[in-house]
Amino acid sequence: MNVAYQGEAGAFSEQAALSFFRNAALASSADAVTLVPCVSFEDVFEALSQNAVQCAVIPIENSLFGSVHINYDLLQRHDIQVIGEVKLRVVHNLMAQKGETLAQIKSVYSHWQALGQCQDFLKTHLPHTEVIPAYDTAGAAKMVATGAYPHAAAIASRSAAQHYGLDILAESIESDHQNFTRFLVLQNNNSNSPSIQLAPSSNDSAEIGYKTSLVYAMKQNIPGALFKSLAVFALRDIDLLKIESRPLVGSPWAYIFYLDIAGSIEQEMVLKALAHLDEIAAFIKVLGSYPIGETVSS
Amino acid sequence: MNVAYQGEAGAFSEQAALSFFRNAALASSADAVTLVPCVSFEDVFEALSQNAVQCAVIPIENSLFGSVHINYDLLQRHDIQVIGEVKLRVVHNLMAQKGETLAQIKSVYSHWQALGQCQDFLKTHLPHTEVIPAYDTAGAAKMVATGAYPHAAAIASRSAAQHYGLDILAESIESDHQNFTRFLVLQNNNSNSPSIQLAPSSNDSAEIGYKTSLVYAMKQNIPGALFKSLAVFALRDIDLLKIESRPLVGSPWAYIFYLDIAGSIEQEMVLKALAHLDEIAAFIKVLGSYPIGETVSS
Repeated sequence: MNVAYQGEAGAFSEQAALSFFRNAALASSADAVTLVPCVSFEDVFEALSQNAVQCAVIPIENSLFGSVHINYDLLQRHDIQVIGEVKLRVVHNLMAQKGETLAQIKSVYSHWQALGQCQDFLKTHLPHTEVIPAYDTAGAAKMVATGAYPHAAAIASRSAAQHYGLDILAESIESDHQNFTRFLVLQNNNSNSPSIQLAPSSNDSAEIGYKTSLVYAMKQNIPGALFKSLAVFALRDIDLLKIESRPLVGSPWAYIFYLDIAGSIEQEMVLKALAHLDEIAAFIKVLGSYPIGETVSS
Repeated sequence: MNVAYQGEAGAFSEQAALSFFRNAALASSADAVTLVPCVSFEDVFEALSQNAVQCAVIPIENSLFGSVHINYDLLQRHDIQVIGEVKLRVVHNLMAQKGETLAQIKSVYSHWQALGQCQDFLKTHLPHTEVIPAYDTAGAAKMVATGAYPHAAAIASRSAAQHYGLDILAESIESDHQNFTRFLVLQNNNSNSPSIQLAPSSNDSAEIGYKTSLVYAMKQNIPGALFKSLAVFALRDIDLLKIESRPLVGSPWAYIFYLDIAGSIEQEMVLKALAHLDEIAAFIKVLGSYPIGETVSS
């Protein structure tokens, strides 16, 4: 099975993908998973739409920086289904070519978010070092591994260090350890290949919670429209886990809403709530029902 | 009066600021407005916090691309007050040095969003031209005006063309004309200078609608917390105009909410709703009550 992700080998998306397909018991087959790196998120969705891959893994939100809005927009535009999620604890490491020591480092490369997350470490331990933004954490590790930048270090994941043969000079250097990224696992809806059946990784499937992701817009001119759309769930004691608003393109200052609710579309109460929402919504698209993801360490 | 904005002279933020302070009848004084360009949004808030400027104008959302999330985060962190808003119709123009013609153009510079918004025009009229992202629309105009790039054009506002002495080769070249950016006008809350009193620009102040912007987080462990927080307004027939969720840093998968509601904190019903919200919220911060902005053309 081919699984697309955005970034270089060693990227956090790649780890999320590996972790998900390692943990999930694939009921349909014991296929080996082949990871397919893509340059952009658009390319990931394109690969899925054209059946070049069977699945994809995309970041959807980070606990410090918020949602990855482009991926919300892409979810709505493509005929895909969300089949799972992974929460990855983001751990940043300082890495360099073998033989380098912390005292020798003259420049540090990484994605600007990672550089920001490690600025306390950099100020304390590398105060006179040049800090240079790169397009990607794993890409920074790849650059440093070429040897073209003497006394350079990268901030990236442990798996990037392993992949590019770099030595870790300092582990877990991020200031805020409450740093998690949540990834969605996607499958093509129009695929001719059979659906991937995921068995819960726990022994007791009844204990596994599910969530359902949907996107909708309300009919025009309904007073209190947003409130009413949430009421269809709240009045049925269905928990709202997340709301994200995005512009309704072509209608300035009107919005579409992405909701994550507790429960699965296999449950009658959820189906009734969706039927109720359909009475007042201009459109509804259920993106998928899937087991609430476990948190894994990077 | 000094007013900070992010970008180069000729930026859309500058136009929004000019438009706002031209239209608003300043009751306190007939001060001339001096616009102060800043490199980053952080710098704009810093200038305001340090009383280097009396006001600031920041973009908060675009009708095609959504919210400017960094500015939501900065609003919450600084002791500021929102005193107004401007909705600017974004019009993009192709401009070059005097004497250049459309047929001679070999490269086009602009912000990547502007390039994307004009890609139909570029494909039709300049199919063989190199398209190069710049950090800013007005910055692209400034670059082209240096003359260092022969046969280069920029995509930017009419006022950028005027400011840098460029000729407009094609007007209003954006594909989607429903392209508006909403700006907020801010004032320092801890300023010693007297508050700026804005008289409504209409003759009939009773007809002017107000909105109130607030940010809050709910107490932990309240079932249906988000729904209940919106109910305090909906049950009082106070319209919800916009909701934006951002991560509650330090509490993964918990959120703070930014709400725009119809009405002013001068109204008893709005005060009662806020008191009700206070019963169930961990914190509330009212960012300001201000007249709903008019739409102006760039």
